[in-house]
Amino acid sequence: MSIETKFARLGTDNAPGQEVRQDAGAVETVLRGERLEGVPVDFSHGDVDAHEPTPGAFEVFSAGVALGGKQAYTEYRGDIGIRETLAERLAGFTGAPLDARDGLIITPGTQGALFLAVASTVARGDKVAIVQPDYFANRKLVEFFEGEMLPVRLDYAGAEPGRSGLDLGQLEDAFRKGAKVFLFSNPNNPTGVVYSADEIARIAALAERHGATVIVDQLYSRMLYSGVTYTHLRAEPGTAGNVLTIMGPSKTESLSGYRLGAAFGPAEIIARMEKLQAIVSLRAAGYSQAVLRTWFDEPAGWMEERIRRHEAIRDDLVAILGGVDGAFVRTPEAGSYLFPRLPALGVPYDLFVKILREQAGVVVTPGTEFGPHSCDSVRLNFSQDRQAAIAAAERMAHLVARYRA
Amino acid sequence: MSIETKFARLGTDNAPGQEVRQDAGAVETVLRGERLEGVPVDFSHGDVDAHEPTPGAFEVFSAGVALGGKQAYTEYRGDIGIRETLAERLAGFTGAPLDARDGLIITPGTQGALFLAVASTVARGDKVAIVQPDYFANRKLVEFFEGEMLPVRLDYAGAEPGRSGLDLGQLEDAFRKGAKVFLFSNPNNPTGVVYSADEIARIAALAERHGATVIVDQLYSRMLYSGVTYTHLRAEPGTAGNVLTIMGPSKTESLSGYRLGAAFGPAEIIARMEKLQAIVSLRAAGYSQAVLRTWFDEPAGWMEERIRRHEAIRDDLVAILGGVDGAFVRTPEAGSYLFPRLPALGVPYDLFVKILREQAGVVVTPGTEFGPHSCDSVRLNFSQDRQAAIAAAERMAHLVARYRA
Repeated sequence: MSIETKFARLGTDNAPGQEVRQDAGAVETVLRGERLEGVPVDFSHGDVDAHEPTPGAFEVFSAGVALGGKQAYTEYRGDIGIRETLAERLAGFTGAPLDARDGLIITPGTQGALFLAVASTVARGDKVAIVQPDYFANRKLVEFFEGEMLPVRLDYAGAEPGRSGLDLGQLEDAFRKGAKVFLFSNPNNPTGVVYSADEIARIAALAERHGATVIVDQLYSRMLYSGVTYTHLRAEPGTAGNVLTIMGPSKTESLSGYRLGAAFGPAEIIARMEKLQAIVSLRAAGYSQAVLRTWFDEPAGWMEERIRRHEAIRDDLVAILGGVDGAFVRTPEAGSYLFPRLPALGVPYDLFVKILREQAGVVVTPGTEFGPHSCDSVRLNFSQDRQAAIAAAERMAHLVARYRA
Repeated sequence: MSIETKFARLGTDNAPGQEVRQDAGAVETVLRGERLEGVPVDFSHGDVDAHEPTPGAFEVFSAGVALGGKQAYTEYRGDIGIRETLAERLAGFTGAPLDARDGLIITPGTQGALFLAVASTVARGDKVAIVQPDYFANRKLVEFFEGEMLPVRLDYAGAEPGRSGLDLGQLEDAFRKGAKVFLFSNPNNPTGVVYSADEIARIAALAERHGATVIVDQLYSRMLYSGVTYTHLRAEPGTAGNVLTIMGPSKTESLSGYRLGAAFGPAEIIARMEKLQAIVSLRAAGYSQAVLRTWFDEPAGWMEERIRRHEAIRDDLVAILGGVDGAFVRTPEAGSYLFPRLPALGVPYDLFVKILREQAGVVVTPGTEFGPHSCDSVRLNFSQDRQAAIAAAERMAHLVARYRA
């Protein structure tokens, strides 16, 4: 494959946060009615000014800088002292042991962990099972490494209560067809769905039976709403040798500006990831690594309060957007993404996304980023100022009505 | 190629800073004489405690954190305000115009820039001309992307005064054989050699004639010693469309702990690099990016003093190691690497490197990391405390004598 072909497939024009590089152009000619005034809201990512970084994070960073060279130049996989601290906390959180020396790597963000994980498990032509819809980079990573994607449908709209709606039959088929890797996010990005205990057990059993590696992106697994139970895949029997877990403090903890993530699982995969990290970026920024000392050690009650505030915004937005005639919203069980399906419109959905931005100051991410069956949906990261988010969702509902087919 | 094969070739056991993961093992049985006491010196990388980060860097970082979401979530290629500031300074430094919007990307370290640059120019089977010796990651990057390496010899020991000793005939041959990319560092890592104006002009002319892309890693181009003239490749005629320049503040400025780098050149390559950065790590840590505001804007006289101190250490170490009977040292013209060739020893050179560590508390990087013809050489980063470096070099000279063949 030529370099031009390879990169032509790697589009980022609609990626969250990149809207600034788009040309508004064509939108002007199709606008209906007046602009809706209000505080602009960028739902493409969370607002870390509305939900601030973990208290003490900056102080711990400062202490890292004061440590000097010891903190600046860590092993490529991260500082051993921090890995030891984290390993204990992550083992406690996920309910399975974790080897600080060989089973854990600190990366530049969860994205950094995902990249290294896919690079370390997917060779050219390897089959990889991918959920649709799921985090947009999953597909791009498999394509970049020239793997073959085997899609597995997540019927989040039609699922029985308490279940994600993953098509387990399709997953089993993918393994039968030779999928060496299964890559998915739990909670699911973009829908906020949490996989049931039964589904997680079935995934573990299927992967073990077929000798497949599972990469599970648990970025949002700390922000669980009322009544939701989360099952950690790595605590299932038979997963010690084939499940790699990815997490990070960029979202719930609002620490994205430090670019920190972690991957933990089989020593063999972690070793490959470190070899690759050595030529990709050497290491997560040394001083930033120090910030991980705050992770899973937030002030008492802080996480509960953060979740409570997000649950309130979730409820507001579900009420507004779920109330739009012909729209469908599944109430997110975790995380801060909402993935409403819009009714039929008189303009293409991708154009409507641009209209929303131009006419209402509302930035959302088109559903097509997450899978081919989601073109009528958009993703909102509702980790925003509550009043601004409510007003923006109301403007969005208003424009849906205005542009209805 | 299987994933196992791919990663088997990507060794990091002898990579600088990774020595902590090695097993000392076999060394004990071949030791001669007593341990040499002294302050341990890790020459595998610079000591940022002896040569501290740019004054004001931490304060600028703090201001970035205070900016909140605006600084945390930049475009993938980096904050536009910072890119505008940098573009002007880098254009001034290199002597050629630079487009802040489309011609510059901020990356997690210079390593991050190198990775993205090679990934964006080298497809499977593409021929790539690589200098021997040169930075060890160059070779690994080409191998990772399954390019074919065409070596070009740098005869730094036999070069005429004022020249690097690059075999321009071999470079031309490589282009004739179809090399699409030429990747090299200037100043050269590990030798500290600066390419002459004539050599740079010849490289520019050859690359243009053969339609090849040149990636030049200028990480150390600010730290030039007395009497040295540096020629920027990107300021040569005909290079605007095919030369990508990489720099960063990790070394001379001791800002490695923030993980910052920059690549600048043709818009098409920068665009690919950004697409890839989106799935590799999203962006250089947002808060860290703020630190680039200090770059090329250091306090008056600070850089001159930094260079003066390093030149003094260089002279000390060249005198000590160059004085070892049978050793060869070319005095570095820039940067903080010294690459002495050792005389014949009674133990293999890779074992001697371990002996040095065990018996003298001196960590150096084996020459084999930099090219197949350098097994008798070792690299020292002499950005160290001066007295500790002198004593360590003397212990090294002592052990060379002790283990002489």
